[in-house]
Amino acid sequence: MNSFSSKLVEEVVNELAKLPGIGKKTALRLVLHLLKQDIPEVEKLGKSIIKMRNEIKFCKKCFNISDSEICEICNNPKRNHNIICIVEDIRDVMAIENTAQYSGIYHILGGIISPMDGIGPNDLNITPLIEKVKSGNIKEIIMALPTTIEGDTTNFYIYKQIKNTGVKASVIARGISIGDDLEYADEITLGRSIINRTPYEDSVSE
Amino acid sequence: MNSFSSKLVEEVVNELAKLPGIGKKTALRLVLHLLKQDIPEVEKLGKSIIKMRNEIKFCKKCFNISDSEICEICNNPKRNHNIICIVEDIRDVMAIENTAQYSGIYHILGGIISPMDGIGPNDLNITPLIEKVKSGNIKEIIMALPTTIEGDTTNFYIYKQIKNTGVKASVIARGISIGDDLEYADEITLGRSIINRTPYEDSVSE
Repeated sequence: MNSFSSKLVEEVVNELAKLPGIGKKTALRLVLHLLKQDIPEVEKLGKSIIKMRNEIKFCKKCFNISDSEICEICNNPKRNHNIICIVEDIRDVMAIENTAQYSGIYHILGGIISPMDGIGPNDLNITPLIEKVKSGNIKEIIMALPTTIEGDTTNFYIYKQIKNTGVKASVIARGISIGDDLEYADEITLGRSIINRTPYEDSVSE
Repeated sequence: MNSFSSKLVEEVVNELAKLPGIGKKTALRLVLHLLKQDIPEVEKLGKSIIKMRNEIKFCKKCFNISDSEICEICNNPKRNHNIICIVEDIRDVMAIENTAQYSGIYHILGGIISPMDGIGPNDLNITPLIEKVKSGNIKEIIMALPTTIEGDTTNFYIYKQIKNTGVKASVIARGISIGDDLEYADEITLGRSIINRTPYEDSVSE
C-alpha cells in the first residue's frame, strides 16, 4: 500500500484513513469511487464537510448539535421542559425521537465516564446538568445511558449529586427485547426483567 | 434516522451515505467524529478531496491515475517497456508493485467484462491496449485479472484479438496460496495446481 502513483490520491487516502473504522484499503476504495463521480458531486461532498464543521453550533441548553444557538427541541414550547432525558450523544437523541414516545427535553453528556479511556466527569457536560436540575424547574430526570459498567457508573455519579434536590430520577427499563426468545437472553438481563416486572395492564397499553 | 437536529449534519450524512459500503448510521458516526476534530483538520480532508478530483489525471499510455499526463511508471526508462501487465484497476498495480517482482509496464482496463453489470468491452480500455500490442514494441502481455468467470472472459476476449500478432500472452499462476493447507483448498484450484505444476528447482528460487 506504499506505492501510490499520485500524491493527490495518497493525501486523500491518508485523510480518509484517519476516520474511525476506515483503513487504508477502504479509503482507497472510496477514492476510486470518488474519481468516477462527476466533479460537482465530489465538490458537494467536500464543501458540505467543511461548511458543517465551520458553521455547526452546540445548543447552549442541552448541547445537542444545532444550526442555531438554541436547538429546535429546546426552543419548542410544546415540549415538556420539566423532564430531562440524559443521553450519551446525539445519536441517542435521534433514536429516542424516532420512537415518538418522549416529549420532554434532553441533555447530551458528550460521552460517559470511562476511566479506561481517560474520560472523567470533567470531560463531560455534567456540571451544567447539575446546575439545570438545581435551578428548580425540573421535576424528573430520565437516565438513558448505555447499560454498561461505564453507563451505570455515570448514572450513579449523576444520581449522587442530585439525590437531595427532590427531583425524581429514573432509568430506562432494562429487559428482554421485544421479539427476543427468552432462552437466548443473558442471565443478568433475564434476572432483572423478573425483578422489574411490570403490571400486565401496563405492558399492553399502546 | 429522520430527525436530524441540524441541516448541516443532514447534508453531510446524505453525501457520505452515497459512498460504497457506507450507510446512514456509519455516515453519522463519521460526522460525529469530524465534529470533534479541529477545523483545520476537517478543512484538510474536504479540500484534499476536491483538489484530487479536480486535478487528477489518467496516464495517457496505461490509464493509471497520475499527477501528470504520463505516469511515473510509464515515464521510467528503467522499466521494461516490452512487457505489459494487464490489470483491472489501480489497486492491482499497487499490489503488484508491492511485490517488487515486476519491472515491466501496466495497462489498466478500468474494469472487466461483466454482462451482469452491463459492462461490455467498449466500456473498458481494451482498444488502446490492442493498438499498443499491435504497434510492434511489445513482446509479452501478462494477464493479471481476477480468477473469476468475468476475468476469464476478459482474458479470452483480449487473447482472441492479439493471438495472431506473435506477442506472447501469459496468465498469472493460479494455485495453492503460500501458507495454505491442501485440505482446505477448493478442488478446481487444487486440480489446476497439479496440472500446472512447476519444476522443483523453480519453486525454491528466490
